[in-house]
Amino acid sequence: MEKIRIGIAGYGNVGRGIEKAVAAASDMELRAVFTRRDPKELKLIDDSVPVFTVDDAKKMTDEIDVMILGGGSATDLKQQGPHFASLFSIVDSFDTHPLIPEYMASIDAVAKSTTAIISSGWDPGLFSMMRLLSQAILPDGESYTFWGRGVSQGHSDAIRHIAGVKKAVQYTVPLESAVNEVRRGAKPKLDPGQKHKRECYVVALPDADLSAIEKEIKQMPYYFADYDTTVLFIEDEDFLANHSKMPHGGMVLRSGNTGENKQLIEFSLDLGSNPEFTGSIMTACARAAFRMAREKRFGAMTVFDVPLAYLSEKDRPALIKELL
Amino acid sequence: MEKIRIGIAGYGNVGRGIEKAVAAASDMELRAVFTRRDPKELKLIDDSVPVFTVDDAKKMTDEIDVMILGGGSATDLKQQGPHFASLFSIVDSFDTHPLIPEYMASIDAVAKSTTAIISSGWDPGLFSMMRLLSQAILPDGESYTFWGRGVSQGHSDAIRHIAGVKKAVQYTVPLESAVNEVRRGAKPKLDPGQKHKRECYVVALPDADLSAIEKEIKQMPYYFADYDTTVLFIEDEDFLANHSKMPHGGMVLRSGNTGENKQLIEFSLDLGSNPEFTGSIMTACARAAFRMAREKRFGAMTVFDVPLAYLSEKDRPALIKELL
Repeated sequence: MEKIRIGIAGYGNVGRGIEKAVAAASDMELRAVFTRRDPKELKLIDDSVPVFTVDDAKKMTDEIDVMILGGGSATDLKQQGPHFASLFSIVDSFDTHPLIPEYMASIDAVAKSTTAIISSGWDPGLFSMMRLLSQAILPDGESYTFWGRGVSQGHSDAIRHIAGVKKAVQYTVPLESAVNEVRRGAKPKLDPGQKHKRECYVVALPDADLSAIEKEIKQMPYYFADYDTTVLFIEDEDFLANHSKMPHGGMVLRSGNTGENKQLIEFSLDLGSNPEFTGSIMTACARAAFRMAREKRFGAMTVFDVPLAYLSEKDRPALIKELL
Repeated sequence: MEKIRIGIAGYGNVGRGIEKAVAAASDMELRAVFTRRDPKELKLIDDSVPVFTVDDAKKMTDEIDVMILGGGSATDLKQQGPHFASLFSIVDSFDTHPLIPEYMASIDAVAKSTTAIISSGWDPGLFSMMRLLSQAILPDGESYTFWGRGVSQGHSDAIRHIAGVKKAVQYTVPLESAVNEVRRGAKPKLDPGQKHKRECYVVALPDADLSAIEKEIKQMPYYFADYDTTVLFIEDEDFLANHSKMPHGGMVLRSGNTGENKQLIEFSLDLGSNPEFTGSIMTACARAAFRMAREKRFGAMTVFDVPLAYLSEKDRPALIKELL
């Protein structure tokens, strides 16, 4: 069987996760990685894969079936998404929620002979699929998304900007009491601060005013002020040993009714590595993009447009026999 | 907006669940119910809906967009499935697993200008989707399906056939210890008896030999012998008050690895009414069948072939804005 030829554009944590996922897929081969850095500086897991500059990609449209974009939505994707979608079928994980319609239109405008599956991480992405599916099955109900326990980069960054902070990591943690209220079928109205608490681990600079740091964190509007926030000061070694991984997770619940009966649908993730899981979903979506492009279903798509069979390595008879 | 015109063929517990689900869907109307019984004997929830015999259906191909089949796979569907699929787009919940390929072929052979979504309950159906999705994302891993806590009709029937038994209900219960072993990422090999226990509630006839009944249940090969089985004798009133509902549920877990990191995907259902939930899924699938038929995507399909957007009442911009 001829393998699906994959390129990765943008090689940070997610790009590395994509590399691992492509290596685990028996129907794919990683043809090349593209970077804005000096290609010689990039250290891939598989050093036999060639690295090129992003500019080189346009010469390789015949050699790559799907380009998976490892870049983030804050800076990279607004420019890179349309650029690559005009040349290749692509998959990205654009996650700036209010800007998705505008971004999608910018991709759709150029994806005339390519298939682009956007916003395909786990939220947006897998969690979105669960929200749609559970609402379609139980129209009379309420949906709830909880995130964590996991690292929020945005909140960690916000702490790092405080004077006297050397290192910081923030974990978003779902409130068990709120989750259980949803499970009981109580259909509560929950503000963000009633769904999550925030745990901050901070390494302070020598002579820093710890109580001032703690106060500044807890009073930070929007980020922390409305949450039950815990601040713990730890040593550098503790930070390195226990807070360098990128675990995450979360859950989507739908509490609904059919007539007088309660029904609960629950989906949850417990992830040892957030970027590797994101890379794994994007890689499954790359398989779907390849197949949809072969059927000339061009344009900007989301996970809502993909038949699940397109995500799997297995053929239809095997899927029906083994998984249905 | 013109509504999707639904028919229900077969009106037992699942048929009643479908009726409730169609009533809850703002884009559908229930046009008619078809039965093999005397139509006058059927008591619908909405008595303004006309009831006809199954034979009348063939005269109504212009009046019904999708026929949802409430029948069971043991007897009804093998004959009714192909019959109705030759006349209408259909949805069914065929669940005799080893016979699905053969059944699907028999449907596909006649669904030349109709769309038939088969095996669309929650297992097969929703759980199948989760098995496919989680395996596609985490190819290096193991999947586990647990059923319950819920009533197994087959096991309840088996007990009812024992001499001296007046009424009986059997609950399949997942073993928490096994579920937690999977959650920890241990990837255990589990026999059926290591995944579930069985709780039997029995109303005995007067003067029945209770210990003989208990022994016969616990020694029944395949059904109970390999399981941790509990038998509780209860009074008729207790049975009526506490064991007349049809709760069910279960979970699909995938424990996988990306490189050295553990990843866990978990999906679970806690259902107050099994037939109503089954009817709700089938109704969402009827919407998909209607849309696929409109696009002339004819033939036998499963939930693996359906883009999730086709299941929802909402249009694409609303899905992207509200659920992505």
